[in-house]
Amino acid sequence: MPGNTIGVLFKVTTWGESHGPATGAIIDGCPPGIDLSEADIQVELDRRRPGTLPSASTRSEADRVDILSGVFEGKTTGTPISLMIRNRDAKSDAYDGLRDLFRPGHGDITYQAKYGIRDHRGGGRASGRETAGRVAAGAVARKVIAQAGVTVGAWTRELGGIAARPLSLAAAETSPLRCPDPEAEKSMAARLEEARTAGDTLGGIVEIVVRGCPPGLGDPVFGKIDADLAGALMGIGTVKGVEIGAGFAAAGMTGSACNDPIGPEGFRTNHAGGILAGITSGADIVIRAACKPIPSIARPQETIDVQGQPAVVTVGGRHDVSVIPRIIPVCEAMVSIVLADHLMRQKAIRS
Amino acid sequence: MPGNTIGVLFKVTTWGESHGPATGAIIDGCPPGIDLSEADIQVELDRRRPGTLPSASTRSEADRVDILSGVFEGKTTGTPISLMIRNRDAKSDAYDGLRDLFRPGHGDITYQAKYGIRDHRGGGRASGRETAGRVAAGAVARKVIAQAGVTVGAWTRELGGIAARPLSLAAAETSPLRCPDPEAEKSMAARLEEARTAGDTLGGIVEIVVRGCPPGLGDPVFGKIDADLAGALMGIGTVKGVEIGAGFAAAGMTGSACNDPIGPEGFRTNHAGGILAGITSGADIVIRAACKPIPSIARPQETIDVQGQPAVVTVGGRHDVSVIPRIIPVCEAMVSIVLADHLMRQKAIRS
Amino acid sequence: MPGNTIGVLFKVTTWGESHGPATGAIIDGCPPGIDLSEADIQVELDRRRPGTLPSASTRSEADRVDILSGVFEGKTTGTPISLMIRNRDAKSDAYDGLRDLFRPGHGDITYQAKYGIRDHRGGGRASGRETAGRVAAGAVARKVIAQAGVTVGAWTRELGGIAARPLSLAAAETSPLRCPDPEAEKSMAARLEEARTAGDTLGGIVEIVVRGCPPGLGDPVFGKIDADLAGALMGIGTVKGVEIGAGFAAAGMTGSACNDPIGPEGFRTNHAGGILAGITSGADIVIRAACKPIPSIARPQETIDVQGQPAVVTVGGRHDVSVIPRIIPVCEAMVSIVLADHLMRQKAIRS
Amino acid sequence: MPGNTIGVLFKVTTWGESHGPATGAIIDGCPPGIDLSEADIQVELDRRRPGTLPSASTRSEADRVDILSGVFEGKTTGTPISLMIRNRDAKSDAYDGLRDLFRPGHGDITYQAKYGIRDHRGGGRASGRETAGRVAAGAVARKVIAQAGVTVGAWTRELGGIAARPLSLAAAETSPLRCPDPEAEKSMAARLEEARTAGDTLGGIVEIVVRGCPPGLGDPVFGKIDADLAGALMGIGTVKGVEIGAGFAAAGMTGSACNDPIGPEGFRTNHAGGILAGITSGADIVIRAACKPIPSIARPQETIDVQGQPAVVTVGGRHDVSVIPRIIPVCEAMVSIVLADHLMRQKAIRS
Repeated sequence: MPGNTIGVLFKVTTWGESHGPATGAIIDGCPPGIDLSEADIQVELDRRRPGTLPSASTRSEADRVDILSGVFEGKTTGTPISLMIRNRDAKSDAYDGLRDLFRPGHGDITYQAKYGIRDHRGGGRASGRETAGRVAAGAVARKVIAQAGVTVGAWTRELGGIAARPLSLAAAETSPLRCPDPEAEKSMAARLEEARTAGDTLGGIVEIVVRGCPPGLGDPVFGKIDADLAGALMGIGTVKGVEIGAGFAAAGMTGSACNDPIGPEGFRTNHAGGILAGITSGADIVIRAACKPIPSIARPQETIDVQGQPAVVTVGGRHDVSVIPRIIPVCEAMVSIVLADHLMRQKAIRS
Repeated sequence: MPGNTIGVLFKVTTWGESHGPATGAIIDGCPPGIDLSEADIQVELDRRRPGTLPSASTRSEADRVDILSGVFEGKTTGTPISLMIRNRDAKSDAYDGLRDLFRPGHGDITYQAKYGIRDHRGGGRASGRETAGRVAAGAVARKVIAQAGVTVGAWTRELGGIAARPLSLAAAETSPLRCPDPEAEKSMAARLEEARTAGDTLGGIVEIVVRGCPPGLGDPVFGKIDADLAGALMGIGTVKGVEIGAGFAAAGMTGSACNDPIGPEGFRTNHAGGILAGITSGADIVIRAACKPIPSIARPQETIDVQGQPAVVTVGGRHDVSVIPRIIPVCEAMVSIVLADHLMRQKAIRS
Repeated sequence: MPGNTIGVLFKVTTWGESHGPATGAIIDGCPPGIDLSEADIQVELDRRRPGTLPSASTRSEADRVDILSGVFEGKTTGTPISLMIRNRDAKSDAYDGLRDLFRPGHGDITYQAKYGIRDHRGGGRASGRETAGRVAAGAVARKVIAQAGVTVGAWTRELGGIAARPLSLAAAETSPLRCPDPEAEKSMAARLEEARTAGDTLGGIVEIVVRGCPPGLGDPVFGKIDADLAGALMGIGTVKGVEIGAGFAAAGMTGSACNDPIGPEGFRTNHAGGILAGITSGADIVIRAACKPIPSIARPQETIDVQGQPAVVTVGGRHDVSVIPRIIPVCEAMVSIVLADHLMRQKAIRS
Repeated sequence: MPGNTIGVLFKVTTWGESHGPATGAIIDGCPPGIDLSEADIQVELDRRRPGTLPSASTRSEADRVDILSGVFEGKTTGTPISLMIRNRDAKSDAYDGLRDLFRPGHGDITYQAKYGIRDHRGGGRASGRETAGRVAAGAVARKVIAQAGVTVGAWTRELGGIAARPLSLAAAETSPLRCPDPEAEKSMAARLEEARTAGDTLGGIVEIVVRGCPPGLGDPVFGKIDADLAGALMGIGTVKGVEIGAGFAAAGMTGSACNDPIGPEGFRTNHAGGILAGITSGADIVIRAACKPIPSIARPQETIDVQGQPAVVTVGGRHDVSVIPRIIPVCEAMVSIVLADHLMRQKAIRS
């Protein structure tokens, strides 16, 4: 079934395979009259590109975006915005040995089961490269929500088991690992290097914070904003868990401790993470996404081939040691897209 | 915006307020020719009714379901199945004092912000009572997925901070707290009684297990099965976190430990929780939902009224001390609905 | 597939079979704060009831509507509005002989082909009775569009081959045949009586006129307002053709004759029927729907039974001689629903 | 609101403006394993290109399509198929004088009303050029429905008021005007030349015929196949009327004449046009679309400018005298897309 569209009023469709000619996104429903240039999108794509740490992928994509429609004389027109990013540095040969093997932890085996055919090169559609389209669309969503005063930021809360203290988003933005806590970042970098040397990979936890969100967004009972945010984040390849506000810790609290008292000035605590009964309350939205370690490790692994015969696979290609920090703009993009959609939904009923 | 429908091919719409004349659900898209009677649905509604522990709500609803359409001579016809459950024991007077107050932890304040109007009686649409429609629809979904050999069960993994050992689903089903571990259950019951006496409430963690699910379900990249399951569970009022397979623990693992090796007999571990790249792998699907404590506590709480003035609220009404165990059939229903939808989606592309 | 919902933001789902316990509709997405009572809906249902002409069906349904949710203290709350209409005068026995026969011109044979099972009583879901739910939902849509100053009316332009002059909608409303032209109405009534005596039935053409519609409604290129209106009307069981503005006559015109010149005061002609490039222009929307004769005729017809064997069928039951005038409120309801949806859609992008 | 997507399971999104860098389409949900090459699509795009008659546009677009994703080694993979067609021969200067004027019969005035901004060059998104994406997607739909033995053809039934006799689709395909009746075609060509000389334009009627369609397609009551087909055709810019089977003529028939008798060998007549109660019957589907004359005439017309002041406009650019025959592959594409979607929908419930 077609699953490559998200959103009802601000609708994003992505397309493209890791080693095809291009990847891209269509945004349908973007309000007209918004200033939009390729540079606005490029800045987000650049945040997603591999860093310069040794733990980063050496695949070098310029990731230049082209706006093919929907913008006229620098402004959105309300018609579909088509964005295209050419793939240039695709080294498909590195994947020749994987044509008939299923890499553990990857979608190879499930794509084969689902479709009976798959583009094995670089993971095909299941590649992290697909997120370039999401980030491009997210850059447009950011402009839409900025009009309502909403901002979305994210930071590395944990990497390789090392937790960071929650300092400022601004500090995170200037850190190579998007970690605002310099001490923790140092330990994280060491752990990454250790893992890289060992041919292994690491996971981590990203925290996304939404500021300035008006109350009233979210559509009970199946289009709640927390449901949509959780779905949008869990749909990122690497994410295995999502929690909002107190999250899993809420399960161990009493009601008297977990309820956020309300005063004339607002909520006195934020265990709810900015959402009550699936609708934004006006408090900051706080969400955490747990990212598994990248499954492409440089060690031999037991698997089977397409005939079901036992095999050993060693994954080549050029891979990061951790999806953090590159996953951070992806998380932000998904949250921005959901918020843009819900801001428009709410305008339809009360404006 | 309309948010009361879930599913694309197996489409469930619920309606109804806590203290209105009735609640219900429409199932549109149910395959024809399936045996279906009111008794099939009643059995699930009965599992959702308050138990007999002192910690349970004393609201006594028979929750009798009527099938108003879509079934002819005991079989589904492919037309919409309309289910209605009359509300009988609604004591709206208990809520008169809450007409102008916002209960902390509840949707009162956000419904008011969203709609500018709300039915304050018993939480209106935001009441847990709304889940009766979900459970009724889930009973039909169960019959659809059973045709493909898929079963869904759930158990209490944690309650009030007390963790249970993962024993059999069958043991959970016969336990009043849906906890398969008798020792843990004993402690949970004591903790519940303690909280009840203190006028407080508790949270917990539910684990849902899907068996017999064929590989290939899920629609990348925005209709992945894990995204849809996470959204469906996070959309339950009480849920603040969702994780799949290793979940948050995966964030602290290395790739070599987290990847599930594949052998001719299947996956050797199940850190993926049965889902790879958003598509089922054929392994058991394992999901956990973190439930916050019920916000209706019997203690005075600081809040504001609809004019924004400080106030103290004491919540009356008849409430459970914990959503566990009653939330368990709701979790199962949501998972069953998502699976029914995805089984049908997959048939559309390969059958 | 589920096909019983129409609309994106103002979403209507109908359910129910001709001879089941009830029929109904859910409206999800109705804006909050609108005055709504059962009487508001009843007035439209009463317009749809059989008239007192000899040519009308003698099935006598009170068609009393119950609002089961979504309204609190006389106002909509933004939550789903569940409407139910009990079936009381269902005489299923009249249909016993039709269990295994396919009536020509009816959906019996296609429902059987599609679902492999059907409720044969009174046409089941394919009965004209299903439109009661549409009319009930349309009454709510009328209230929504009235807030924007939009009104929808319709009249009998042709019946049994007799054309009426286009006089006022008000005159149509007071006529038993919804025909504003008294002379034509007299001939139509005679033709109806003639057909009734002959055991035959008649078709006709309904014209729907929308006044006060703001410019800007419609979502190119697949959600154009003319596309949505055409789909909504063609989805009425009896309709075999839809045209807008000059319609089929436009095919024979030259561009210089067909184009509507624009002046400061507006369009000088209205061959476009109020819609240009799929978007309302602010001129009156004018649509015509061609209705086939009711297929239930009182004469023997050649057909086959469910085994494919030749048979002769004579249709009993209580039927009108023409869907006109009862189809008129159904056409108005469908147009009102589409307009309510598009008014809300447009608010989402510019408000 | 986003309106640029059609279909539920076979989902087509188009994008692009007349004078932007490119136009295109995304097909999401195409079944995997279908042979697909650019040549398969090119053949349909070539059928849509301007002909060589004097009455044809002189804009010369090669309309070369690129497949950017979703195809691997010559077969569809089940992932989104991104198609792009570069615009090369766009002469935007010809439109400079139209920046502030609203051409009668065009969407200029309604796009301005809807979005408050518009790309005036060549009609922007409202240009007939947008249909290139539809035709490209329709070529893929054709391959999907061909697997089920379904074919779609269309012919010129009327042009400039001249009716053609209904001869073979094969004869139509080889005619420059897609008219199977050589005599009528001769008159049509003369009428076109006459109109061209007069700086005027002509309309016509297209008939679309679907052969080999299995019974059972269509989703009552709002996703009926006739509703979807009517909506899809009415959504083509030029179409002002749609009828199925006997269509408007049915309004003047009696039930005994209009009902199609059923015999063991099938339906004895086809007034229903292959659809009963919104579901295909297995008989040929026959639909007619009434096309208005192209509004771009070479004569001065009264209009207003964006400030509402009276003005006279003379439309330059390179235009056809009639949308016929170029609209024919567009009609076929829309019908093919709807059928591909419904074939997949039906597989989901019975396969």
